[in-house]
Amino acid sequence: MPRLSTQPYKGTRDFYPEEMRLRRWMFGRLRETVERHGYEEYDGPMLEPFELYAAKTGEEIVNSQLYAFEDRGGRKVAIRPEMTPTLARMVAGKFHELPRPVRWFSTPNLWRYERPQRGRLREHWQLNVDVLGGDPVLADAEVLGLAFELIDGFGGGERIAIRVNHRRLVDHFFREELKLPEGAALKATKAVDAREKVGEERYQAWLLEIGLDPDQARRMDEFFQSPFEATARRMPCEGVELLRGLFAALEGSPARERIVFDPTVMRGLDYYTGTVFEIFDTSPENRRAMFGGGRYDNLLRLFGNESLSGVGFGMGDVTLQNFLETHRLVPALPAATDVFVALPSAGLRKAADAVARELRKAGLRTVTSLTPGAFGTQLKQAQRLQARFTVLLGERELAEGMYLLKNMATGEQSAHGLGQLAPAIRA
Amino acid sequence: MPRLSTQPYKGTRDFYPEEMRLRRWMFGRLRETVERHGYEEYDGPMLEPFELYAAKTGEEIVNSQLYAFEDRGGRKVAIRPEMTPTLARMVAGKFHELPRPVRWFSTPNLWRYERPQRGRLREHWQLNVDVLGGDPVLADAEVLGLAFELIDGFGGGERIAIRVNHRRLVDHFFREELKLPEGAALKATKAVDAREKVGEERYQAWLLEIGLDPDQARRMDEFFQSPFEATARRMPCEGVELLRGLFAALEGSPARERIVFDPTVMRGLDYYTGTVFEIFDTSPENRRAMFGGGRYDNLLRLFGNESLSGVGFGMGDVTLQNFLETHRLVPALPAATDVFVALPSAGLRKAADAVARELRKAGLRTVTSLTPGAFGTQLKQAQRLQARFTVLLGERELAEGMYLLKNMATGEQSAHGLGQLAPAIRA
Repeated sequence: MPRLSTQPYKGTRDFYPEEMRLRRWMFGRLRETVERHGYEEYDGPMLEPFELYAAKTGEEIVNSQLYAFEDRGGRKVAIRPEMTPTLARMVAGKFHELPRPVRWFSTPNLWRYERPQRGRLREHWQLNVDVLGGDPVLADAEVLGLAFELIDGFGGGERIAIRVNHRRLVDHFFREELKLPEGAALKATKAVDAREKVGEERYQAWLLEIGLDPDQARRMDEFFQSPFEATARRMPCEGVELLRGLFAALEGSPARERIVFDPTVMRGLDYYTGTVFEIFDTSPENRRAMFGGGRYDNLLRLFGNESLSGVGFGMGDVTLQNFLETHRLVPALPAATDVFVALPSAGLRKAADAVARELRKAGLRTVTSLTPGAFGTQLKQAQRLQARFTVLLGERELAEGMYLLKNMATGEQSAHGLGQLAPAIRA
Repeated sequence: MPRLSTQPYKGTRDFYPEEMRLRRWMFGRLRETVERHGYEEYDGPMLEPFELYAAKTGEEIVNSQLYAFEDRGGRKVAIRPEMTPTLARMVAGKFHELPRPVRWFSTPNLWRYERPQRGRLREHWQLNVDVLGGDPVLADAEVLGLAFELIDGFGGGERIAIRVNHRRLVDHFFREELKLPEGAALKATKAVDAREKVGEERYQAWLLEIGLDPDQARRMDEFFQSPFEATARRMPCEGVELLRGLFAALEGSPARERIVFDPTVMRGLDYYTGTVFEIFDTSPENRRAMFGGGRYDNLLRLFGNESLSGVGFGMGDVTLQNFLETHRLVPALPAATDVFVALPSAGLRKAADAVARELRKAGLRTVTSLTPGAFGTQLKQAQRLQARFTVLLGERELAEGMYLLKNMATGEQSAHGLGQLAPAIRA
């Protein structure tokens, strides 16, 4: 039989205990912060009907990145490439029962068929945070504040910029100022969103293809380079007013100093209709957006007549980890064995098990040896596990109900009765 | 546009916050127990190469239950139906680096195309626990002990039976006693494994198809009904000796009283070669095995010349939840909002945010209102969230730097300065 490869499927990762500790630490800390803001966790199935993404997720993802196939019963299904459609489906499913605003988070794994590169893999984990309902400006402010707090919880708050824009302002500019027809306006946002990725030459050619003349392209760049107040004066519109309200609502929040107006922020997903934002690392190594999100008004309409506006973002584990490592914000995360119970001979197994049970009852992470053997080989096992303590069983001590406890850091040894071992370790 | 359904894909579940709390509670407690035994968490990708399952997972699963498809690059992949092949791949991939024994656990979601029914869904979550290396009898004993502790951690230890068998004993019986050829022996184990499911008539017909004559079928039933000591006397063999060692190694463990010898336990997976076991609810409502596992000797050989024997089990969330609910072992799991900060008018937003930030710093789960409004509507929001406390902002109190704190259970109100709110809530 040919040997199978030990490599994981292309673009995916194995999480050995060391990598898993890092993932758990990252998501543990994220979870702590969102839960302190009163968000509740939800989850949905990893497969969804294909149609759920066909509607609103955006052409590029659906046509070239979605993992879609027919199940054995002929249903067309897809592995979730993002979480928001599932969220919308679930909220629509209990529209009249859920207390509002709905403040939910989730930590799904998501799949996209991509050419693996820095920051992009085929499978990644994502913290998703959403608020549906409530005053839209206050909800936007809360979500932006929370995005800041999540990064600040790792000590990275000063290293980011939150670039904010509004789809209605962009719409106003494209339709009222440039007089573009609707289709061309949408295409132009896609081109702007991809500008950095495709390069300047391709970007300019793209604008020509869409039908923008050189004067329109020049006015676009002017718009993109204008600070907020200049734009606000020159083209008063609803988008400007909503952004002004958002900036005001953020006054006093530590997030406010990190927020900049950036009219080039578009977001690739088709369903955003309001505020859109992207969080960037301010250090030059990471030039692409770390994560982003925005407000969607019409997503629940896919499921019925009810409508409820929401705002949210998804923060991926790969880019977050890159950020934390760039700024040396990951602490040492050692394996956590408290006690190793040695087994000098097979006959002492019952005594070793009894000690281990007692220590576990006291909440200590306790491992027993599964290979009886001499003192030295037992201590080596304890060292490999980085155990803090080893319990040594000796026939003579056992006869007196005593156990030798060795502190692996200091080498100190002391003898204790069964009930005194855990307190001695805790002390 | 036609409306999309709000139902999840057939055979899967949506986890609204209420259901998610239950899932997190279950897995949180399981994780606590396995970590107290020194097991470390790992994870792998949700898609694996198809060949990983084709080799050893067993015909029924691969041919009729596996979610398999070709990716956009023409690779044949499968959604994991079980975790052990991923575990074997990962251990083989770092064979010479990992300290032994390897004590690992994981909590993956797994997929099988099944007709949904009680205890069986297409997507479920599973706690996987494995030990590779160490003395096989001691490792088997540890894993059986741990299976007991996991259930006992929920208060259900007295409600289960752990039925144990050994593949070598079964092999010995089929080959040496019944003189069946190898192929027929394997088929006979499958028939025995499915006996309960397919019914007695189909089972007897199946044995005839395999080529067992009525005398052989009768001797099989005799074997299945004999207690351990009778079988041990009548057919001494390696399997008997290993089981005897296992029962001895469990002496003194609280799991010992729950363990019974059951020669009908086979397990459906093709890779088991040693001890096999199934955990049953002793109450008559749940007649099928809750979960099970066993020892596999040759799984790492799929990847190279190295070999390392392992033992493990997978415990599914659906059957576990059924068990816990049957025995009323699930506590109330309320939503956890500590404080609701009311917003009497939009102008007080900044003050409300400052209070919320202060309380969150103190670790309290704090929600601010996103809809300014009168006292009564604010309190209703707090009640719907089951918040324990509400902070009320009044212009007059604020002018003096004071905040009204309302205990939602007792109705008591008291006034505090900003720094005193958190201590007052904790008290």
